[in-house]
Amino acid sequence: MPELRKDPVLGRWIIIAKERGKRPTDFIISEPASKGGFCPLCPGNEKTTPPEVLGYGGPGRLPNTPGWTLRVVPNKYPALVIEGDVNKEGEGLYDKMNGIGAHEVIIETPNHEEFFTQLPFARMQDVFLAFRDRLVDLSRDERFKYVMLFKNHGRAAGASLEHSHSQLVALPILPRMIVSELAGSLSYYKYKERCVYCDIIRQENKEQSRLVCENEHFIVITPWAPRSPFEMWLLPKQHASSYITQTHDQFQALTRIFGEAMSRLEACIPNVPYNFVLHGAPLRSDPLRHYHWHFEIMPKLTNIAGFEWGSGFYINPTPPEDAARYLREVSLT
Amino acid sequence: MPELRKDPVLGRWIIIAKERGKRPTDFIISEPASKGGFCPLCPGNEKTTPPEVLGYGGPGRLPNTPGWTLRVVPNKYPALVIEGDVNKEGEGLYDKMNGIGAHEVIIETPNHEEFFTQLPFARMQDVFLAFRDRLVDLSRDERFKYVMLFKNHGRAAGASLEHSHSQLVALPILPRMIVSELAGSLSYYKYKERCVYCDIIRQENKEQSRLVCENEHFIVITPWAPRSPFEMWLLPKQHASSYITQTHDQFQALTRIFGEAMSRLEACIPNVPYNFVLHGAPLRSDPLRHYHWHFEIMPKLTNIAGFEWGSGFYINPTPPEDAARYLREVSLT
Repeated sequence: MPELRKDPVLGRWIIIAKERGKRPTDFIISEPASKGGFCPLCPGNEKTTPPEVLGYGGPGRLPNTPGWTLRVVPNKYPALVIEGDVNKEGEGLYDKMNGIGAHEVIIETPNHEEFFTQLPFARMQDVFLAFRDRLVDLSRDERFKYVMLFKNHGRAAGASLEHSHSQLVALPILPRMIVSELAGSLSYYKYKERCVYCDIIRQENKEQSRLVCENEHFIVITPWAPRSPFEMWLLPKQHASSYITQTHDQFQALTRIFGEAMSRLEACIPNVPYNFVLHGAPLRSDPLRHYHWHFEIMPKLTNIAGFEWGSGFYINPTPPEDAARYLREVSLT
Repeated sequence: MPELRKDPVLGRWIIIAKERGKRPTDFIISEPASKGGFCPLCPGNEKTTPPEVLGYGGPGRLPNTPGWTLRVVPNKYPALVIEGDVNKEGEGLYDKMNGIGAHEVIIETPNHEEFFTQLPFARMQDVFLAFRDRLVDLSRDERFKYVMLFKNHGRAAGASLEHSHSQLVALPILPRMIVSELAGSLSYYKYKERCVYCDIIRQENKEQSRLVCENEHFIVITPWAPRSPFEMWLLPKQHASSYITQTHDQFQALTRIFGEAMSRLEACIPNVPYNFVLHGAPLRSDPLRHYHWHFEIMPKLTNIAGFEWGSGFYINPTPPEDAARYLREVSLT
């Protein structure tokens, strides 16, 4: 079983995926995965993945058969496992817990050659709806406190399969990222009695210099203190702490603005590898006045990100005002 | 002038290196720098770097001429600049300060083809002595609160020049990494009245399972909750919060153990790209009972580190006990 371990100084939890058991030779610096060859995410290979937990497709389609447009399956090599109770334990001064959780793959398209950003509107919207469906379903499991929802695109950004997919990890603990955001935004709220993200939206709307694009429900900005060149944050204009309470209208607007932001990024930097991560309130949380759900989109520009990863200390060679201007002014074909 | 900017939610400071002004086309995914061609760090090219701030070499050598074995020069494209006073300012809800600081390059060898890990003992020791010399010198400047000392080896780890070098950045603020470590270790100290790192050393010595190597003054372990496969921490056995107070004996022992740990890592994973970072108390700090200086050595295994970088959430496929066993048992030729 995998194990969750806590750094005794920083309180940061790490998943040790023992089952993967990588040996030194597994890390010989490798070339990008070659095109062609067997793909477990392609139609016709449904039996090679664990049984699906969600599938969108034509009426009458049977689970784990072709005909789907989107499929969610447990990861065959999960970082965490679904069966068992959460047990916390010490080991001398260290803390650990058994690696209970869920690790799922959202297969965004049946077409191996189609990237997320190339999906037609309705099918990109399906991806965002699938995120909600899985969040709602997994929040029924009282063992889980948080679901990390993310996408790695491109090998430099950690994608090990070429076929377009995103992932989720349901966790029995709150990851450090969200703990820090909840604490920081609460402390701002206590002082100002306003949501810091709502204040950010107000200021960015007024200043315009870091604005990438917007529509009736969403705004995309390059953040004031970005870790990475061309980092973007996508925020709902109306205050909400959880992704799952969005209306039909909002999902449509989300799909449009996300598609536009990514098109702008790819027009600026062709073939850019990137990660995006959904930041939202913990599962089953009451609505929070101080916290505001959002996406963070991080291009992975390989010759930049080495040292920063190890130190938490970032040097960014592209001011966000410049990045936003490039993103706004690039021509979309 | 560069700018330091604070994330309004997390309190994380980022350096915006405006002068570098990277445009989208600067990020077209590039091949590793080709061998050959002009190298500004090679002997004979001393005039192409800013004037040196430290040079080791034969007696009678003039600064900025050949004959050196180690040279420290300001970075020609600094992330921070040395002239000016520190001014803090708000911009709406955001905080910034002008980018006062120092950014220096430690050229570890005159030989372009010689890697850090191939340096003979006396010259590797010179690198560690140069770290101390620069820390002592920069701590006289009251504007600086911390010096980040680090090495990027290999393009995947962020090295943009092939010629072996490390870097330092002197900062007018404490980076988040050190703020978190000081807070975490202080909270442990308040509860236990012991240094958490001293307790870690005691436990690792007793358990042996995460021990990589040790000598009379130092211990190298794979940490309990490592972010990366084959991550190593190198700690002095005797409690000390600052790197600069080491004795002659300790510098010799540091050189031996650092060389051994890196040889073990490279024997396990040939051509491994890596970063190491010195973690120590803030400049001019009184000796701290709760904090313990150390090096963190992070291999950069490219297909692992994408997503984690963006989310602060780590999945590590190699248990540190396995990594330590491989590192202990590998044959050193």
